[in-house]
Amino acid sequence: MGKRHAINFHTLTHRAMVVAVTSPDQDECKWATENLEGVRVYLDYEEMLAKEDLQAVVIASATAVHAVQTLSAIEKGYHVLCEKPLSQDVAVAHSVVDAYKRSLRIHPKQKVMCGFSRRFDASYREAYEKVAQGDYGRPVVFRSQTADLHDSSGFFVNYAKTSGGIFVDCSIHDIDLMLWFLGEKSKIKSLQAIGVTAVHPGLEAIKDRDNAIATVEFYGGRIANLYCSRMMAAGQEDTTEIICQRGSVRVNMEGRKSHVDVHDSLGARRELPQHSFDRFREAFVTEAREFTSCCLDNTPLPVKLESSVRALAIGQALQRSLVSGDKVMFDELDAKL
Amino acid sequence: MGKRHAINFHTLTHRAMVVAVTSPDQDECKWATENLEGVRVYLDYEEMLAKEDLQAVVIASATAVHAVQTLSAIEKGYHVLCEKPLSQDVAVAHSVVDAYKRSLRIHPKQKVMCGFSRRFDASYREAYEKVAQGDYGRPVVFRSQTADLHDSSGFFVNYAKTSGGIFVDCSIHDIDLMLWFLGEKSKIKSLQAIGVTAVHPGLEAIKDRDNAIATVEFYGGRIANLYCSRMMAAGQEDTTEIICQRGSVRVNMEGRKSHVDVHDSLGARRELPQHSFDRFREAFVTEAREFTSCCLDNTPLPVKLESSVRALAIGQALQRSLVSGDKVMFDELDAKL
Amino acid sequence: MGKRHAINFHTLTHRAMVVAVTSPDQDECKWATENLEGVRVYLDYEEMLAKEDLQAVVIASATAVHAVQTLSAIEKGYHVLCEKPLSQDVAVAHSVVDAYKRSLRIHPKQKVMCGFSRRFDASYREAYEKVAQGDYGRPVVFRSQTADLHDSSGFFVNYAKTSGGIFVDCSIHDIDLMLWFLGEKSKIKSLQAIGVTAVHPGLEAIKDRDNAIATVEFYGGRIANLYCSRMMAAGQEDTTEIICQRGSVRVNMEGRKSHVDVHDSLGARRELPQHSFDRFREAFVTEAREFTSCCLDNTPLPVKLESSVRALAIGQALQRSLVSGDKVMFDELDAKL
Amino acid sequence: MGKRHAINFHTLTHRAMVVAVTSPDQDECKWATENLEGVRVYLDYEEMLAKEDLQAVVIASATAVHAVQTLSAIEKGYHVLCEKPLSQDVAVAHSVVDAYKRSLRIHPKQKVMCGFSRRFDASYREAYEKVAQGDYGRPVVFRSQTADLHDSSGFFVNYAKTSGGIFVDCSIHDIDLMLWFLGEKSKIKSLQAIGVTAVHPGLEAIKDRDNAIATVEFYGGRIANLYCSRMMAAGQEDTTEIICQRGSVRVNMEGRKSHVDVHDSLGARRELPQHSFDRFREAFVTEAREFTSCCLDNTPLPVKLESSVRALAIGQALQRSLVSGDKVMFDELDAKL
Repeated sequence: MGKRHAINFHTLTHRAMVVAVTSPDQDECKWATENLEGVRVYLDYEEMLAKEDLQAVVIASATAVHAVQTLSAIEKGYHVLCEKPLSQDVAVAHSVVDAYKRSLRIHPKQKVMCGFSRRFDASYREAYEKVAQGDYGRPVVFRSQTADLHDSSGFFVNYAKTSGGIFVDCSIHDIDLMLWFLGEKSKIKSLQAIGVTAVHPGLEAIKDRDNAIATVEFYGGRIANLYCSRMMAAGQEDTTEIICQRGSVRVNMEGRKSHVDVHDSLGARRELPQHSFDRFREAFVTEAREFTSCCLDNTPLPVKLESSVRALAIGQALQRSLVSGDKVMFDELDAKL
Repeated sequence: MGKRHAINFHTLTHRAMVVAVTSPDQDECKWATENLEGVRVYLDYEEMLAKEDLQAVVIASATAVHAVQTLSAIEKGYHVLCEKPLSQDVAVAHSVVDAYKRSLRIHPKQKVMCGFSRRFDASYREAYEKVAQGDYGRPVVFRSQTADLHDSSGFFVNYAKTSGGIFVDCSIHDIDLMLWFLGEKSKIKSLQAIGVTAVHPGLEAIKDRDNAIATVEFYGGRIANLYCSRMMAAGQEDTTEIICQRGSVRVNMEGRKSHVDVHDSLGARRELPQHSFDRFREAFVTEAREFTSCCLDNTPLPVKLESSVRALAIGQALQRSLVSGDKVMFDELDAKL
Repeated sequence: MGKRHAINFHTLTHRAMVVAVTSPDQDECKWATENLEGVRVYLDYEEMLAKEDLQAVVIASATAVHAVQTLSAIEKGYHVLCEKPLSQDVAVAHSVVDAYKRSLRIHPKQKVMCGFSRRFDASYREAYEKVAQGDYGRPVVFRSQTADLHDSSGFFVNYAKTSGGIFVDCSIHDIDLMLWFLGEKSKIKSLQAIGVTAVHPGLEAIKDRDNAIATVEFYGGRIANLYCSRMMAAGQEDTTEIICQRGSVRVNMEGRKSHVDVHDSLGARRELPQHSFDRFREAFVTEAREFTSCCLDNTPLPVKLESSVRALAIGQALQRSLVSGDKVMFDELDAKL
Repeated sequence: MGKRHAINFHTLTHRAMVVAVTSPDQDECKWATENLEGVRVYLDYEEMLAKEDLQAVVIASATAVHAVQTLSAIEKGYHVLCEKPLSQDVAVAHSVVDAYKRSLRIHPKQKVMCGFSRRFDASYREAYEKVAQGDYGRPVVFRSQTADLHDSSGFFVNYAKTSGGIFVDCSIHDIDLMLWFLGEKSKIKSLQAIGVTAVHPGLEAIKDRDNAIATVEFYGGRIANLYCSRMMAAGQEDTTEIICQRGSVRVNMEGRKSHVDVHDSLGARRELPQHSFDRFREAFVTEAREFTSCCLDNTPLPVKLESSVRALAIGQALQRSLVSGDKVMFDELDAKL
């Protein structure tokens, strides 16, 4: 992701200039030296902050250092685009939000945002507008899935150890979309999740699953259904349905990698994107450009930091329910999520 | 449904002969006299049984009399095809199963079946075979929905009063499919449902909903997700996905009424079936023919009566969870469902 | 086709009764004896006509005897449904039309029709109504194809010898649809065809091709484009587009055998019908029923015999153009086709 | 197109630097001043060539000056990317090719290319690879269409006066693809076109049509079918099918503007791209980048200039056939096209 962001800002974001990059990994630094012309490369993030005079920082490091790196940049008054999640620890994430709020008093134009790429995807935006114009009535049922291609390399189980679990790692995007489509202020009434380990038995030991289903109930007559999977055979399949009272809007129900179909002895066939990056490549570029414009022109952030922290908290609550089996009920007045 | 069955058996099932029909409704009797050539018409079911010498009875009356009519026919040794559900009362339904089992000792070739049309649908059968041949590994996630066209006539709320609720009335088909695809012997570990009333507020008073989502967890690493709705704008949308370890099989993900597409100023568009009968018309004919063959040739029943009663019990349990909000856990050894 | 018609009339057409069948083939007679309960079987068509007292005859014999068998039945005043084409010789086909016209003076309710199944297909009828209601303006461009699954058995080249050529054998249906959609009275201004032998080199010797494209120009500003193929890898692909001034109506652009999709390591995939009979099964039943009703109720024929003969003449003209390479122009006043 | 190229090279092509732009149109110059930061703006092309020290020129001016502007740049040894067509006059186009060939002796690394965007489209490239890998046998039938959204503003008829006709303006892309997929060296055996004016009657006077169909026959057993239209109701619909002996590859058979579907009372619906630029936006960027790399790295041109001139000659021959009604035959040895 760091490389992708670097390329997107360096070559595809006309108003941005990448002046320095950092990674504790020697190979990544070598890659940067070779691929990012005219860009200074640091092994240490703090050293970069100390030596460079920057305007904004894009953080795509290990999740474990997201918060601390974001805090350092906030302190310097820099704009920050941090990959999701801000932290695996909701309390820490909240502390970043608080630090940002305090910093805003000194740097009122400072922008700190978590990178939720789907908010920048043209199709999701079109869907949002179609729902928002109101012809179909209010959204009632939100269904969304993030289903990744099965990784048979064995890499995945190791990765999962620090991923925060399938609801934090996969469904966080669907949760973010859920809050966007059903209303950032919607209050959760109940949530619950179930799951299985069907192809990665090693997940059981680390209290994770490779397929899971959640239901989320909101006060005000809205319900949501999330599905996440690490087991897809054909490719990455992310789909979203917003079912309103008099119509529904659906995103990517018939995923395809390209405009190509093949008809051969097996039938009529299309290929699917293999990775979410294939599906959301343009969204990442749009994110880079809009974040840049937002910083330069002091326009409102496309996604509020509080919303991203709330998405994380919901993801973690679902992950706990997945493991415990409990359905958790919430009081309307005492909104803990 | 009675008329449809009568027509299907009378004109489209070569090996069956409709000799008599019955309905307490004068208009229906009139319709039968006019449309079912050479068929005797009765206002009273028991009178028909008393006067006619039959081989089989097809019951598509009000749900309230399904069980008693089935029992009368079982007693006479007749084959019975009864519309689902056998009864709104699971205990009564179980008593019908018991009566059938006792009767089998006297009439070992007697067939009693509940009419679950989707089991006779060519696409569901193709899907079942594709899953069963095993190339994709075992089924892990079952997702299915029955989503009906919004009825704006006001008829629906009245109908709902005696329907048993949305999980019994709509999802019963998905539950039946779930048992078929995940294994009739799979034991339920937990179930839970949430729902809303978005377009039929009158449903609230009768403890029903117009949109609902359920999760069902099975012992042995299988999970299911059901969605039912009474609010679709474009038509009836029933879809099913069976996600296996190395592939998934999907039924009717792109519903269409016909092979026609229209491209006009609004875009590219297809129409959807308006009613499940449009979608499953052929399945009902297949059901009539196979039930007939099963009776005449003494072959095994395509759907076991116990399975249909179990589907009903699960539907009712989901309906209770929908109203109470409770997630219900089941012990593996003490399988109550 | 004879067996299918026999089954359709015998078991699926309630108002028809199959009393006798005939075939010069012993095996077919044996099949009839075993499968058509209560039906008398003849080896000789004329003997059947002589001995049986019939109301209607359905002819699905070898094309070579279509005309003579139709004439015998016309003479007896029987209704006739004859498989297309009436004859390979347009003059002979015209003589059948003349005989029918003369017979009508004696038997004014007599019905003689060529079986063009697509006219009875629900999707084509829906398309016709959508075009006819006029919202899209007049039809301007008609595109249609009949593309059959590649037959690797070697049977096809032999069959082709007496088929009349690809435009008579395959495209006759598209030509019939073209006349229906563009107007039975539309006059042809030019026609032309090109083709290749890509998979059946043996066709070259008998002046046929396995892939061919035709253009047909009508007076009054309408044009048509036909494609026919014997080389499809995935299945039978018949598609039709009627492009009107303000919208277009399309039939079967995304062929599928069933409602099933499979997602596996190759991508997302559906199977196609393998034979036109899979696609038009219901249309043949509708044809049987409507022809029966037309005879019994003396309603107008769904397809006029003259239209079917004209379709044949156009198919033969295209086949000649295919072989000669000539584009043929027609005078508006002297409509030879 | 000029603006789009300017933006693509200026902001999206990292290795290119736009130093100067030119247009005889004051408004366009104003736009350039405002939108192309740091770029010098000229009203006169020749003045720009005289004053600036350039490496490459991108020509997207009126077709009438394409050739002369290309020649001026060739003379200076500059690389040239010229929008199609090089000229409306094939002889002039050939003279440009000759000038380029002579210039190559002096400037062996000089690149002159006509901009055929579809060759840079990811889906067409994927299709080309799938055909080229050979599993499906050789390509036999090539079908392609360029069908544009109906322009009701009246602008179109005026534009058409200098467009060269529908086969030069629309189908040139399909012809280019045809040469690519069927082989640049394939020799034409016959060509022929028919057409109508259904929505723009004014086209008749300028010997053009708004819908046209062509057939092209090649020596070696390959045939092509082209359709072009100015009358689409839903959007721009470009589709291509390459039908090989044992499989077919299809591009964009189900066009869509985005990943969004809407289900409402009209059915299930998607929107189409409104303009080819929506469909090929990325292809134009790829073209800019690859042309840049080709110039800087002296790699072979993705599309040969001769091929582009041949496509033009074929388009003009089809346009003549469209007007005359003649089918034109070509001798294999004396390939004039």
